[in-house]
Amino acid sequence: MRVSPGVSPADMQAALAEFQKIVGAEWVFTDEEDVDLYRDSYSIFWDQPEERIVAAAVCPDSVDQVQAAVKVANRYGIPIYPVSTGKNLGYGGSAPAYAGSVVLDLKRMNRILRVDEDRGFVLVEPGVSYFDLYQHLRETGSRLMVDVPDPGWGSLVGNSLDHGAGYLQPTYRNHFESHCGMEVVLADGTLLRTGMGAMPGADSWQDFKFGVGPWIDGIFSQSNFGVVTKMGFWLMPEPEAHLEANAFAYRFEDLSPMVNALNYLENTGVANGMSFVTSPLYGGSSFVPRDQRVVDHLAGAGHDLSQEELNAFADANKVPYWSMTLKFYGPEDAVRANWNFCKKEFAKRVPGTTFDEGKLWRFPLTPEQHDEVHKPSFGIPSLEMFSRGARSPNNPEGDWGHIWFAPIIPRTGEAIIEANKVISEITARFDRIDSLRRVKFSTPTTYWARSFILLFGFSIKRDPEYDRKTLECLRTLIAECAKHGWGEYRASPVVHDNVAAAYSFNNNALTRFHERLKDAVDPNGIISAGRYGIWPKHLREKKG
Amino acid sequence: MRVSPGVSPADMQAALAEFQKIVGAEWVFTDEEDVDLYRDSYSIFWDQPEERIVAAAVCPDSVDQVQAAVKVANRYGIPIYPVSTGKNLGYGGSAPAYAGSVVLDLKRMNRILRVDEDRGFVLVEPGVSYFDLYQHLRETGSRLMVDVPDPGWGSLVGNSLDHGAGYLQPTYRNHFESHCGMEVVLADGTLLRTGMGAMPGADSWQDFKFGVGPWIDGIFSQSNFGVVTKMGFWLMPEPEAHLEANAFAYRFEDLSPMVNALNYLENTGVANGMSFVTSPLYGGSSFVPRDQRVVDHLAGAGHDLSQEELNAFADANKVPYWSMTLKFYGPEDAVRANWNFCKKEFAKRVPGTTFDEGKLWRFPLTPEQHDEVHKPSFGIPSLEMFSRGARSPNNPEGDWGHIWFAPIIPRTGEAIIEANKVISEITARFDRIDSLRRVKFSTPTTYWARSFILLFGFSIKRDPEYDRKTLECLRTLIAECAKHGWGEYRASPVVHDNVAAAYSFNNNALTRFHERLKDAVDPNGIISAGRYGIWPKHLREKKG
Repeated sequence: MRVSPGVSPADMQAALAEFQKIVGAEWVFTDEEDVDLYRDSYSIFWDQPEERIVAAAVCPDSVDQVQAAVKVANRYGIPIYPVSTGKNLGYGGSAPAYAGSVVLDLKRMNRILRVDEDRGFVLVEPGVSYFDLYQHLRETGSRLMVDVPDPGWGSLVGNSLDHGAGYLQPTYRNHFESHCGMEVVLADGTLLRTGMGAMPGADSWQDFKFGVGPWIDGIFSQSNFGVVTKMGFWLMPEPEAHLEANAFAYRFEDLSPMVNALNYLENTGVANGMSFVTSPLYGGSSFVPRDQRVVDHLAGAGHDLSQEELNAFADANKVPYWSMTLKFYGPEDAVRANWNFCKKEFAKRVPGTTFDEGKLWRFPLTPEQHDEVHKPSFGIPSLEMFSRGARSPNNPEGDWGHIWFAPIIPRTGEAIIEANKVISEITARFDRIDSLRRVKFSTPTTYWARSFILLFGFSIKRDPEYDRKTLECLRTLIAECAKHGWGEYRASPVVHDNVAAAYSFNNNALTRFHERLKDAVDPNGIISAGRYGIWPKHLREKKG
Repeated sequence: MRVSPGVSPADMQAALAEFQKIVGAEWVFTDEEDVDLYRDSYSIFWDQPEERIVAAAVCPDSVDQVQAAVKVANRYGIPIYPVSTGKNLGYGGSAPAYAGSVVLDLKRMNRILRVDEDRGFVLVEPGVSYFDLYQHLRETGSRLMVDVPDPGWGSLVGNSLDHGAGYLQPTYRNHFESHCGMEVVLADGTLLRTGMGAMPGADSWQDFKFGVGPWIDGIFSQSNFGVVTKMGFWLMPEPEAHLEANAFAYRFEDLSPMVNALNYLENTGVANGMSFVTSPLYGGSSFVPRDQRVVDHLAGAGHDLSQEELNAFADANKVPYWSMTLKFYGPEDAVRANWNFCKKEFAKRVPGTTFDEGKLWRFPLTPEQHDEVHKPSFGIPSLEMFSRGARSPNNPEGDWGHIWFAPIIPRTGEAIIEANKVISEITARFDRIDSLRRVKFSTPTTYWARSFILLFGFSIKRDPEYDRKTLECLRTLIAECAKHGWGEYRASPVVHDNVAAAYSFNNNALTRFHERLKDAVDPNGIISAGRYGIWPKHLREKKG
């Protein structure tokens, strides 16, 4: 039996016995081989003293059991770490922020409680994965799509609460904003419903988010203020068609007007899918690969070229510096008209832009088409993304995993250039590179409307020296980027304190406000201590 | 000098003197004629003992002054009631929820701090009105639109915080969800910035809402947890065109499939403006008036007809029972294609539906067109809505104002029918009717994507007996509708306790959670006591 920090062995034993009474003996895990399944297999501290090891795991099957278990934890002061499916790889997996916590594993609560085909919503428990929901909808003949993140085995609830994202229209692919209504168990076991859920019998729980009075849902995301046991989600019905098409620009200085055109087209709803900003010269994307002439030239050179050398090659060979993949959901005639408008807009703002014809699919896809498309753009869950980190010609050793660095930068061309300059200087100093795309110049993702995230996955090698240097690189990036105003949108618990500290306006007033809320809603500080830099009082004092 | 409740005259005097030092003597109002300007001119308790009268008003001009003033209030325990422009008519105006509060009037803080044309956002102070921003954008040649609510004299910040709404694409017309980033002064004077604003120097404060860690913005809406001193808003750039068109259905039972078609078309983004559900038989809307044959028939009959009589008339005369006005923003070709698709969808689901051709405008409008259009659908602020309550043939006495009743109902045809049955029975019992549309059958508004609000404005007559009966009607509606799961999205302070009490799941767990937050962030309970049913500890105890 492992014992949680700050808990006596006798209390640990007593609490575990009570957990067993609540969920059944077979659903409390204390044996090493069981508990170790909750290790973060992408841990940057694998097998090192700093690895955030779990003390035990408790798997309730119902809200009643969650309430009862949380009350026990609260009484004995057991630190608990709720996870939905625990698949948050690259951001910490199912391992806690505070070593020695007891994982409250909600995977058994995997009921799809409601599907409304006409209004387009579902109500689900935390254990429901994207695969589960997709399969259920397809089996029942529904025409609702699921907005899936890259790996489809995760939880809708967990992904939403950690500010995850997918690929459909902006409303849907922001997985926190596409939720409607929550049920939460507080640290004292109180059951709470938000929005219309606070009105008994309201059939509109998934129609309207706010209910009346303060809208509290946001404070349960990326935090440790409660255990979310139900969430509603809005789903996008299948449109008639999906079109994806590309614009290419040929000068370095075209990036800024290209981004401004993209902003206009997205902000007016003309381009209503997830756009991809790519450089066929410096790198590539799922939609536009690196230009073959560049690839061949590099193969001939036998080594990578500097940005200046690549620029010279591009100018001499008419290789596009930039491309944008635009995506459209809607009636076939409308998406074609929208793309035509986009072409005019790019041509007006960036003379010399060229376009491809675009590729159009009609819904529902045929089974054969499933293998041709970018699955997440069609709401099809998969695990294909994991091939990225696998052993390959580009990555002969393969990886044990990766850890994400994901700063938000302003939505301008200038910011892309400037951030790449700053970040590549640091990563070069540490001899690190994005392990998934393996390019030196990173183009931003647009998971959320109006935001640019620069996304870097750094290899985990399970080599203590290598991994420590990667962590040092990551912490340096966090601190240096903060000086430029670029802050992370999400992070692994190993850097939660660093990331939160960088949001330092007015002597970290926001973190201190979070602490104030924490003390009010979880006075014994039992839930997910340390998550996103929020420590309960007794641990702040110890730290301080 | 009026004295706030719970404050000694000496402390009141001392506090007022300190306020004067902070904002200047000319910006502290204590004379009756000045202070009475903060009365709610739509008060249902006009001149009655229960009217929520203001003790004084303090008008800071800067964030520093707000911080200093709040600190003084906190030290002396002065109840304060922050308002932005105080134009929240029908929902309480500038009068406090707690009589005797000192209004903290932010109207002098009317700076437009930032406009980013390319990224489409603004950062504004609370005193900036829709008129102010519109005028600024037009004068500077901007192509950004302002999503305005019906009356344009209100504050962007105030309207957003009270969950107000406008008329453009769904992203924009939800005025809370279209905000990005806040600055808040807490009750102890601490200055807080949310989202990327918590990172010093972040240029992306208005690009990305969440920052990192819990997203707290929602708790400052419809509440009393802080004084919001800045907010960012996303603005919609002018699209190429706007199309508005109508579908008509001819049978009572068509409502349900009509609503389902509308849901599908909005949820896929095909219809991307604010739709209007109307009954040309039972009433009318800004876009589709009551059918002229019905109007003539009623004039002939000399009295209103029952629903059954109207149905018989409709069947005999082919009068449509229902119409839906759909609105589209985008390239001309795309909006036409989208409308064509909508026609097919309605025809498929509701055989016999007829359509009008639709009316198309291109941006920018000519000055002449400004007078032809429904202004808010083009982002043009006005005060035209106030003509509704004015003296007219339908309303020969005119009104002193109105008070809103605005329950959320499920987004189904059945809910519209059922809610009308329940509500009209109650309003008939009290001899009250919606004073703005003056129809017995109310069709829902769709201010927010996926929600239906039934909106009733009841006349304020400044006749104590009449108004008291209206309030009794309103309280009865709140309680009776709650039994059906229909809860208010927003309300006047005179019914905040009633409205909040109706959200009673698990012994009002949500309100008790709000109280817990209140005690943590404003322990002396000085800010907007009672707002949306949230009372500070010392007043809860008194009440209890």
